[in-house]
Amino acid sequence: MTTKQIVLAARPKGMPVIENFEIKTIELPGIGDNEILLEAMFFSVDPYMRGRMNDAKSYAPPYEIGKPITGGVVAKVIKSNDADFKENDMVTGNLPWQERCIVTGDGLLKIDSSIAPASYYLGILGMPGLTAYFGLMDIGKPKAGETVVVSGAAGAVGMVVGQVAKLEGCRVVGIAGSDEKVKLLKDELGFDEVINYKTAADMTKAIAAACQGGVDIYFDNVGGEISDAVIGNINFHARIALCGQIALYNTTEIPTGPRLQPMLLTRSVLMQGFIIGNYQSRFAEGSRYLAKAVQEGKIKYKETVMEGFDNLPVALMGLFEGHNIGKMIVQA
Amino acid sequence: MTTKQIVLAARPKGMPVIENFEIKTIELPGIGDNEILLEAMFFSVDPYMRGRMNDAKSYAPPYEIGKPITGGVVAKVIKSNDADFKENDMVTGNLPWQERCIVTGDGLLKIDSSIAPASYYLGILGMPGLTAYFGLMDIGKPKAGETVVVSGAAGAVGMVVGQVAKLEGCRVVGIAGSDEKVKLLKDELGFDEVINYKTAADMTKAIAAACQGGVDIYFDNVGGEISDAVIGNINFHARIALCGQIALYNTTEIPTGPRLQPMLLTRSVLMQGFIIGNYQSRFAEGSRYLAKAVQEGKIKYKETVMEGFDNLPVALMGLFEGHNIGKMIVQA
Repeated sequence: MTTKQIVLAARPKGMPVIENFEIKTIELPGIGDNEILLEAMFFSVDPYMRGRMNDAKSYAPPYEIGKPITGGVVAKVIKSNDADFKENDMVTGNLPWQERCIVTGDGLLKIDSSIAPASYYLGILGMPGLTAYFGLMDIGKPKAGETVVVSGAAGAVGMVVGQVAKLEGCRVVGIAGSDEKVKLLKDELGFDEVINYKTAADMTKAIAAACQGGVDIYFDNVGGEISDAVIGNINFHARIALCGQIALYNTTEIPTGPRLQPMLLTRSVLMQGFIIGNYQSRFAEGSRYLAKAVQEGKIKYKETVMEGFDNLPVALMGLFEGHNIGKMIVQA
Repeated sequence: MTTKQIVLAARPKGMPVIENFEIKTIELPGIGDNEILLEAMFFSVDPYMRGRMNDAKSYAPPYEIGKPITGGVVAKVIKSNDADFKENDMVTGNLPWQERCIVTGDGLLKIDSSIAPASYYLGILGMPGLTAYFGLMDIGKPKAGETVVVSGAAGAVGMVVGQVAKLEGCRVVGIAGSDEKVKLLKDELGFDEVINYKTAADMTKAIAAACQGGVDIYFDNVGGEISDAVIGNINFHARIALCGQIALYNTTEIPTGPRLQPMLLTRSVLMQGFIIGNYQSRFAEGSRYLAKAVQEGKIKYKETVMEGFDNLPVALMGLFEGHNIGKMIVQA
């Protein structure tokens, strides 16, 4: 049996391009003792993957040249020599970009697609949802009546942050990059205000206008000048959760900007970088909160689904152009 | 009776100059009901005062043009109509830059000069000591065996930070600006390593060499490029306490530098600005810890004392040239 796989052909300089990827066809052997044959159904495409394409020490090891990209995948069990998994079980795990793969059960999680569509386990019921939950609750520590600003608000993490903040009684201001996104966040997802950073004349003023009492919590998915504008409106004793810096992922030199420390100092502001792995011991708490909110219809979720395994590189590149609304998914 | 006073004559642009100050002689009336006549003995001269010379919203209100500079002062009671204070009592409080002044007892604290020299109540037993204690203990959260870097290490706050960190079992690396300071910190105050930033060829490498396992806690008194170099060596899950940014206090435009967020994010670093006022409810805890350590000889303290009331402006300007070792004090 053969399968297609997508490998890292070369490390990008700046924005990834199609030549950084290569689609190969490889032979798969039969499955051995305790092994499982999976068929991929949904692939997660996430901004953090750009960092792994660099050869740089970070919280996740770099992808290797000539080896497949890996990431979150929802897959179906086709054949199993592991008693814990049977044919047609739906699972999620960190898996290679392959149509089919042979794995052991380590790190595979069975999912219950009666609670929510299977692909949600790559989004609100997976890492992006937990990232939103813990960054907001543990670093932001929202109190009812406070003003929360979230950048990348229409992304997989941002739209959960805003809705959880609303459930916690906060006023929520989103920042997004198209009128379509603005409309979705305001009309469907209950954000109080949303700013289109591509059309706002002056972001610092736009945020000041949307946050008359200043910003108590900033959940930062983007970095760069948008964040400068938010931090210009930051309140005394505010909390900033650093979740993503998508504006900077494709820079090849160290980006410069206004120094933040004087502002953070004089206003007693907390800024905390985090990755979801820090909260592993508390995943059950976050998953319960989010599953309940989804089942009760209190949090809505959106996905941008591209069809076709071969489109994985295009989907990843599209993240940096803001092509996605909500979670970017590729359906195999 | 007359007294000299020093007022803010004009707001500085950049580094303060002597023309920003004016020495006046004013008439003092007799003391009224509940009033106290004080004679100043020691004046505290602190970096934060530079911020108050600007007309900018910050944690402390700006000094007013034509009004006296105010700050920490140790004074002696000359005459008192307040039953709680009697002649020759030594007190400390936030008082004007005047040789003599008339006040009420609000905010005056009697000091016990049998524990330590009276001027220490402007330093290790006053705001700088408490600033060091709470910034290190509450934000840094030192654990035995961790590596602590402190910039401005030979200053009023820095030398306490380093010694408290040693008491807590940490390895301590200081950054200071002269060989004399380096020698003092290493030979007398027990720092493990001290880097002279004025002679180090490459600060990032110098810090890497002094902190082989990276930096777990950075207590930042200076900001600017020194801090960039420290943050280049920061560990996963490190804590950065933002206490001072003396390198930037005299800038007139918003300073720029490398953006920190990508590093803070990928290494899950916490950065927290603070001012000592945030810890008012816990001052007794900090004062007890420091008084005990001073009395037991476990923490040593140094002062640079300039003589003469008229030298207050020169002493303040000297802070930004690094003229002081330890606490800068003017003796009236």
